[in-house]
Amino acid sequence: MADLPVQLSDVMRARQALAGFVRGTPLYHSPSISQLVGCPVYLKPENLQRAGSFKVRGAFYKMSSLSPEEQRRGVVAASAGNHAQGVALAAQQAGIPATIVMPAEAPITKVQATEAYGARVVLYGTTYDDAYDHALEIQRATGATFIPAFDDPHIIAGQGTIGLEILDDLPDAGTVLVPVGGGGLISGVALAIKSLRPDCRIIGVQAAGAPAVYLSRQEGRYCTTDSVRTIADGIAIKRPGKLTWDYIQRYVDDIVLVGEEEIGLGILVLLERAKLVAEGAGAVGMAALLAGKVPNLKPPVVVVVSGGNIDPNILARIIERGLVKAGRYVRICALVPDRPGGLQRLLAVVARAGANVIDVQHERWLNRVTVGEVQIHLAIETRSQEHVQEVLAALRQEGYDAQLIPRFRPEGD
Amino acid sequence: MADLPVQLSDVMRARQALAGFVRGTPLYHSPSISQLVGCPVYLKPENLQRAGSFKVRGAFYKMSSLSPEEQRRGVVAASAGNHAQGVALAAQQAGIPATIVMPAEAPITKVQATEAYGARVVLYGTTYDDAYDHALEIQRATGATFIPAFDDPHIIAGQGTIGLEILDDLPDAGTVLVPVGGGGLISGVALAIKSLRPDCRIIGVQAAGAPAVYLSRQEGRYCTTDSVRTIADGIAIKRPGKLTWDYIQRYVDDIVLVGEEEIGLGILVLLERAKLVAEGAGAVGMAALLAGKVPNLKPPVVVVVSGGNIDPNILARIIERGLVKAGRYVRICALVPDRPGGLQRLLAVVARAGANVIDVQHERWLNRVTVGEVQIHLAIETRSQEHVQEVLAALRQEGYDAQLIPRFRPEGD
Repeated sequence: MADLPVQLSDVMRARQALAGFVRGTPLYHSPSISQLVGCPVYLKPENLQRAGSFKVRGAFYKMSSLSPEEQRRGVVAASAGNHAQGVALAAQQAGIPATIVMPAEAPITKVQATEAYGARVVLYGTTYDDAYDHALEIQRATGATFIPAFDDPHIIAGQGTIGLEILDDLPDAGTVLVPVGGGGLISGVALAIKSLRPDCRIIGVQAAGAPAVYLSRQEGRYCTTDSVRTIADGIAIKRPGKLTWDYIQRYVDDIVLVGEEEIGLGILVLLERAKLVAEGAGAVGMAALLAGKVPNLKPPVVVVVSGGNIDPNILARIIERGLVKAGRYVRICALVPDRPGGLQRLLAVVARAGANVIDVQHERWLNRVTVGEVQIHLAIETRSQEHVQEVLAALRQEGYDAQLIPRFRPEGD
Repeated sequence: MADLPVQLSDVMRARQALAGFVRGTPLYHSPSISQLVGCPVYLKPENLQRAGSFKVRGAFYKMSSLSPEEQRRGVVAASAGNHAQGVALAAQQAGIPATIVMPAEAPITKVQATEAYGARVVLYGTTYDDAYDHALEIQRATGATFIPAFDDPHIIAGQGTIGLEILDDLPDAGTVLVPVGGGGLISGVALAIKSLRPDCRIIGVQAAGAPAVYLSRQEGRYCTTDSVRTIADGIAIKRPGKLTWDYIQRYVDDIVLVGEEEIGLGILVLLERAKLVAEGAGAVGMAALLAGKVPNLKPPVVVVVSGGNIDPNILARIIERGLVKAGRYVRICALVPDRPGGLQRLLAVVARAGANVIDVQHERWLNRVTVGEVQIHLAIETRSQEHVQEVLAALRQEGYDAQLIPRFRPEGD
């Protein structure tokens, strides 16, 4: 393998350039998550970074490397996500004009957040690829510098500062879990950490719905995927970087995959146990740890929570799904006589079993429902999967044919 | 007023005692929230404190003040909330046996969290007062030391360390907003800050549903309230402390009230803009700031986010309500012809207006619905209140009598 263009010294230079502009985020030991997982777990909360993700690090270092003339001509980038806000904030900090091209259907909140950092936003096309092509056109027409999202030496060096901060706070880190999309974050973190602590294991985590780097690893050669589909939109990348692939090959010990429900549970655990809002991409490390997906787990473990830019509506749905999975919110159904007191008696059993009723629906159209009966659907709050079974048992003991309604498509369907 | 028992020097001693056991939390400038509010805003995220709230500070300092013999006899406390976990963690850190009395119906998650810190949990009675009385019985029977939740010099001094940390990071803080329940937190913070920076304004924030300190201030004498009702359960206190009332009289510039919807919006803004999970009590400062409730607001402003222990289920509901309030999730209804294509044509208009449909319900039983019609209820995602009006206008232009369904009880009803 040819010698790689970014070295530890570049990451150290990046750190100096970033000082005062980019937050050094803390490293939090979480006793509660450690107990859950069974080994010491530390969180690197880059969701608390400025603009809500690690992206500002690489973007700012890239901009600080531009000549005065290049700075004057400005920068241009294409993104529908964190890279947009990272570039916009970094440009504002560096006093450089920035143009960000986003697909026309980008969420209004992302557009507004990017504009709030002083960038000009151009809405173009329907896909990221359209926006990317248009950004290159703008670059050619204006002489602005294109800021890539990941496949760039300065971007990699900037993201690598996270690795230095981790070792400052936890020199004996045993395993570091890093989300992988295009690979910029893990390239920098792995370079920094492996250069200083070769025995620390670096594990990349991808969403099963966007597994290009995982597949590349399996195949032993650079691969892309035709389509991606995951709630972890920050790492939903079809084509990882060529340069980042080189770094991953050299420095990363393993790549693992996590499913959508696992990602949702990762988000929920970070929310509930660490009081941190993580986006899907930010939670894949936590998801892998909780799902026992990390081979040869060497403690203490550091989970890089790469960002927190998640739509609150989606977050609310993920919380609900996570509670279902944890047995803390379920739907059950039971047939009751369709006459006065029928529902009340059912609810009395549920109340005695200690479950809180959230919603009641009557269903008379089902095949199994005869005249004189009604099927009741209850949404209830419970304490655990065991408690769910207790509620069902209590109902069955009273003669109800109570059933759990499977709510979500199981993983892998 | 007689001289008060806690001085700045006590807070400084507390800080030394806490070092290594309690997290010094960072102070985060939030450009996004600053822009929203129109002045520089900093957050003191005590939700990231160990055990999820500031409570461990006072509890640990109290325990460090006990004699070896007192430590051997252990500590006892009564709480259904953060004080339970704070005392349990502090006792674990100090190597002291702890018994926590909770009302029998305390949420299982709070019981488990308290036990996870090694405390013995006793479930007793139905109210906090029952638990409190039982804790005093245990104290008398065992000789354990009772750890009060707020009305105690060591507790006040311990919470005051937050004030010292704020001034370390932002010496020229202009206004500090502090949640007020029993008053332990604000007593310590106000003492510390006013002793060092008398011109910094300290504003206490209470929930309108639990206004004892606000009323005391209005009346000019110590008052209690008969009942409390607020989602900010951490500050839902009928009887504030006597000692803390003295500190509030001496050091606090003003007490303001916030309503339930305002608190919900505070939680949502912290979640979305700062990626922080705050509980109701932790969000009242943010709520007061957003609602323009703070008189003579002197920048820069520090908002103490006191804790993050909120049930995820409740959080999901608060997110939904907050989105409704922000015009980002609404329900509308319209009459359509009850025949093939009726619904589809309605949905086509909604789609063209750029709203995402979450749920559809058919309603045929209403008075206004004649035979041959059906009322459609749509839950839709929108971008803003303006967008909601655009969707309604588009529907009306196509001849639908579209109406917004008011979802929640307005404030003050």
